[in-house]
This record gives sequence, C-alpha cells and structure tokens, in this order.
Amino acid sequence: MPKVVDHSERRRELVQASWDVIARDGIEGVTLRNVASAAGCTTGRINHYFSGREDLLSSALVAAYDESEQRMIAVIKTSLPAKERLRRVVYEGLPFDAARLKEWKVWIVFWAAAASNPLLAKQNRIRYEGWRHLLLGLLGQIESLSPDSAEHCVEELLAIIDGLGLRVTLTNTPGNRRMASRTIDDYIDRIGT
Amino acid sequence: MPKVVDHSERRRELVQASWDVIARDGIEGVTLRNVASAAGCTTGRINHYFSGREDLLSSALVAAYDESEQRMIAVIKTSLPAKERLRRVVYEGLPFDAARLKEWKVWIVFWAAAASNPLLAKQNRIRYEGWRHLLLGLLGQIESLSPDSAEHCVEELLAIIDGLGLRVTLTNTPGNRRMASRTIDDYIDRIGT
Repeated sequence: MPKVVDHSERRRELVQASWDVIARDGIEGVTLRNVASAAGCTTGRINHYFSGREDLLSSALVAAYDESEQRMIAVIKTSLPAKERLRRVVYEGLPFDAARLKEWKVWIVFWAAAASNPLLAKQNRIRYEGWRHLLLGLLGQIESLSPDSAEHCVEELLAIIDGLGLRVTLTNTPGNRRMASRTIDDYIDRIGT
Repeated sequence: MPKVVDHSERRRELVQASWDVIARDGIEGVTLRNVASAAGCTTGRINHYFSGREDLLSSALVAAYDESEQRMIAVIKTSLPAKERLRRVVYEGLPFDAARLKEWKVWIVFWAAAASNPLLAKQNRIRYEGWRHLLLGLLGQIESLSPDSAEHCVEELLAIIDGLGLRVTLTNTPGNRRMASRTIDDYIDRIGT
C-alpha cells in the first residue's frame, strides 16, 4: 500500500516543519505560509493533509508526545534494573540534545496555548495521564517502594521533570544541563531508600 | 507629586488589562487594540505609556513577578519558624486562587515567548535568579540543613514548584490543587530530616 505510506510520510514532514517553525518563531509564527515555506511546499499541500491551522497545531503536539513515548517504550522493554530504566526514561523526556530541545519548545508553546484553549488543555491532560501512568508503572517495579509511596512519588517526579525541562529549555547552558541531570540522578537514587 | 502617582497608576491599569487579555486569549490576543478595549481606553493612551507591544508585554511580565515578590517579602518579614515561612512563600508562588492563577497564565505565556525570544529569555533568567536567591535564603535558615544540602535542595524545590504550578494552571481542579499542596507540604516536611 505505497499510497498509505506516502500519506503518513507527507503528514510527518509537515508536522516536522511546523515543529521547526514553532521552535524558531513561537506559536505566533505558525501560519500555513510559514510552515509551507519551511517544508518547501505549497499551502495547498498543507490544506490537503490538515483541515487548517488548528488541526496542524494539534497534530504537531500529539506527534511530539508520540515521538518521545516511542523512545521511552524502547527503554522500558530492556532488561535493565528498574531504577536504571526509570532514569533512562526520564532522560528521554528531558531536553538534553537538539531533538529533545525542539520537542520541549513545542510543549511549552502548547502549554501556553492550552492555558486559554480548553480543547488543547484537554488533549494535554490526556497525554499527561499517559505519561503519569508510564512513570507509575516503572516506580511500581522498584521493590523497596510501597504502592502508596509510589503514588506520592510520581507526583513529585512529574513536577521535577517539568520544572527541570522548562529551565533547561529556557536557559540551555552546559551548567543547567549538568544541574538537571545531577538533580534527577540524586532524586532517583533516593527513591525507596 | 500627583502627576507621578497618576503616571504609575495608569501604567499599572494597562498592565493589568494586558494580564486579562493574556489569561483569556494567550499572547496572540495581545494587540494594542485588545488591551485598550480591556482597559476601556484608546490605543493612543497605551502608546503614551509604552513604546509598543513588546514594551507592554515585557512590562506585564516584570509586573507579574514583582506582584508575587511583594507578597513573598511580606511573608519573609514575619517571625514564623523557618519551615513555615518557606511553606507560605511557596504557596504565594502557586496558582491556588484566581489572582495567582492569572499570574501563572502570564508566566506560562512568557515562557513560551521566551523559548524563541532571547530578550525575554534574559529577562526571565534574571527574575528566576532572584527567585532562586530568595528560596536559598529561606532554606539557609533551616538549621538542620547544611549549606551544601541547601544548594541541592533549592534546585529540586524550584523544579517542583514550576511543575506543580504548571499542572494546576492547565488543569485547575480541586483535586489537582489538593495534590499540589500535599506534595509541597510533604516535601518541605522532609527537608533537613
């Protein structure tokens, strides 16, 4: 079915072009014309794959989440000890390289949009619940942690990840990246002790 | 000097009108016309007090930080035990009522703008350093906490506050507000133990 593959491949290219525009110019820069220009195509092609700017934006958010989720699932499937898998999953969710930094810029822009857009807020909430569930599953495999403690721990861990990711994204210095990885390492080391 | 008082009072009204617009429509909604309409004045008056949209936006960010800082300084000056002052300062920085929820929407919108605007990123960084310094000073007064541990703790605490504030702002339910205050209370209880 080469046509189906083409279709999702084309959509993906347009989504990636919109990430580039968001990371460079913020959400205000996302016009069909700018995304078409970044993708090297016509606005007509965007209109063929998306019903409009809102559809493109929400697809870009969903795709940014899916991309990081795929990387995390690959880590979860390894046979590493529970804490080490947790640490690697959290690292996959932090802006420690150019690709993840771009994802973070997309997320922050969407949080801002979600603050005044109930539909995006709902979409964000659904993804967040998935992310919480994934971390809770990993915490549940740390034997020294009771289920009650895991429930408490997951809220703290989610907040720390968001706070550190935000800080590293807005001030992307080697010092801040070191601070973030040290803070996460120390936090995970202490879980269940 | 009634004229001086009038000047800063007028600026303040326009800044508050821009907060309202940001909280309602996001940064995309901030046009001189929308802010003038929210303030019940002409765009000419905004141009009299601000050099343009960028100036109004960055003044709105600075004012949102200053407003919360004033409340925190009032808490710091009390003679409550160190941990209780820390707890109350952190609460002042979280979106637990309508006024603080509006501040948080302003901050999140500015984070998104700062992700693609170096000038706003710099302004954000300066305010963040002030906030870090304030929390570190409070942690330094907890006798059971060594200076090294305080330096580590402040990074974790800053991240937790940002992560919880973000989550409560985007999903402002009683359950999430309870989760956030319980998470902060537990975290502060454990400091230095």
